[in-house]
Amino acid sequence: MSELRVGYLGLGLMGKPMARNILKAGFDLTVWNRSPEKCAELQAMGAKVAANPPELARNCDVVITNVSDTPDVLQVTLGEGGLIEGLHPGLIIVDNSTIKPAASRSIYQTLKEHGVAYLDAPVSGGTLGAENRNLTIMVGGDSEPLERVLPVLQAMGKSVTHVGSSGAGQIAKAANQIMVAAQMIAEAELLVLAQKAGANPVKVIEAIKGGAAQCWTLDVKPQRLFAGNRAPGFKASLQAKDLNIVMETAREYLVGLPVTALNTQLFNAMVAYGEGDLDNSAILGTYERMNDVFLQVPEEKQD
Amino acid sequence: MSELRVGYLGLGLMGKPMARNILKAGFDLTVWNRSPEKCAELQAMGAKVAANPPELARNCDVVITNVSDTPDVLQVTLGEGGLIEGLHPGLIIVDNSTIKPAASRSIYQTLKEHGVAYLDAPVSGGTLGAENRNLTIMVGGDSEPLERVLPVLQAMGKSVTHVGSSGAGQIAKAANQIMVAAQMIAEAELLVLAQKAGANPVKVIEAIKGGAAQCWTLDVKPQRLFAGNRAPGFKASLQAKDLNIVMETAREYLVGLPVTALNTQLFNAMVAYGEGDLDNSAILGTYERMNDVFLQVPEEKQD
Repeated sequence: MSELRVGYLGLGLMGKPMARNILKAGFDLTVWNRSPEKCAELQAMGAKVAANPPELARNCDVVITNVSDTPDVLQVTLGEGGLIEGLHPGLIIVDNSTIKPAASRSIYQTLKEHGVAYLDAPVSGGTLGAENRNLTIMVGGDSEPLERVLPVLQAMGKSVTHVGSSGAGQIAKAANQIMVAAQMIAEAELLVLAQKAGANPVKVIEAIKGGAAQCWTLDVKPQRLFAGNRAPGFKASLQAKDLNIVMETAREYLVGLPVTALNTQLFNAMVAYGEGDLDNSAILGTYERMNDVFLQVPEEKQD
Repeated sequence: MSELRVGYLGLGLMGKPMARNILKAGFDLTVWNRSPEKCAELQAMGAKVAANPPELARNCDVVITNVSDTPDVLQVTLGEGGLIEGLHPGLIIVDNSTIKPAASRSIYQTLKEHGVAYLDAPVSGGTLGAENRNLTIMVGGDSEPLERVLPVLQAMGKSVTHVGSSGAGQIAKAANQIMVAAQMIAEAELLVLAQKAGANPVKVIEAIKGGAAQCWTLDVKPQRLFAGNRAPGFKASLQAKDLNIVMETAREYLVGLPVTALNTQLFNAMVAYGEGDLDNSAILGTYERMNDVFLQVPEEKQD
């Protein structure tokens, strides 16, 4: 389909299905992962496996990184044994990780001095979105390299938006997480209030979900909570990690976000309690403990 | 259309268009308002005007109240010169005001002793929803009287949900306001972060509005803010009033809502600053002042 040789670095819960969709779209794909056994499935599907990040960079036109956090991206990109040791003119590096916008901007500058383009391209939509090619991809960086890699991004997501210059994709992701966290916590607060004040939470959600409060969160998450399903979806530990990035960014660019600060602390507490592997909507559990009340769905009759 | 004689008490920004829609649906309508001049328009359209609340109660099968706050509802319903002085068997009183659930439950009990049914039926959707018969109506109380008045409620709103027993409508409205306030404040926080971190806020909204953060708020409000339009919509002073009801209810039923508590304080501050007549999305102004940054929409080019 394309002559672009694509490299994917980081085959975690998100990276692996995203790399799979690149392969399915017909691209020549090479992969690398710190734990090499995660490469086996893609290799069986036809992907090549690079021995190390510099080799991945040398053999590809585009390398996409998808690792856990800011220090990991810095390491695999600019650190010893990182992509930087295999740079070549015309290479484009795209980062699907969610990291600090300032770090993205710094990597962009360093790579620019080597004649290499860098796009920050964090995604939203969770593992399911990654599997179903249903991700929202928010891109920061220059237009020319984005045009070249657009078919690769479109192989992974339904919506690709060029938000602005380097770092703007990460800022959009931070904005996204501010809203998502606010909705998860509002959902938890309204459910415990309904429960304690003696209304049927199922009916309360039914009454409000189509009005001014309408959101994807209320469309999807209460039904899972009512069914006792708190499995991820989107892990609370990642929600907490992303919120801590938001707060570091807010400090870096001098802006006060009091409500997101509080939301961050609540997700930190949830992770501290050992529930980081649950869905972000399971922040409800923090409120249940705090208020000594547990979500109950009455039998089918008026409460 | 129906033999139900309907009374409407309280012809404010919401009540007047709602009463108009009842008249348009063909009901026999009588109105009363503290300031009598507000009755003129409906009188010209064919409504009768009662001399006082007891007369309204005596001459109607259903009386709907729509006044500002808990003390006003208590006064016009149970106070001296209130509806209570005109009760008759079979009368149904419906309250479209947003008040404390515990007050609704108390009125329900008092009226029940007089053989009169009482429904709490607060609405969401703002003045525009009231005019366009596009309100969400959340009902608490008994099923039998609700069935009788349902055609009247359907003349005012697109969605009528029986949430549960007395007070459950008000609890749903409180739940609604928890989520709406959270979204308005998250919107403000993400816009000032985007602005200060150097991204184009228009592009940030475009990138995130279709993903996990999707909500009616992001669908509608940023465009108005970008256009410099902070007119209501839904007044911040009413948002603050409703949030204070939520917090009183949380205290009454013993539940801690830390984030809604903070949101309430921010809306209280907005009202204190003299911006209570702006739209609730104009909480952005509180964040602009707090952070010494003002929303700017760049000319149409990549930022």
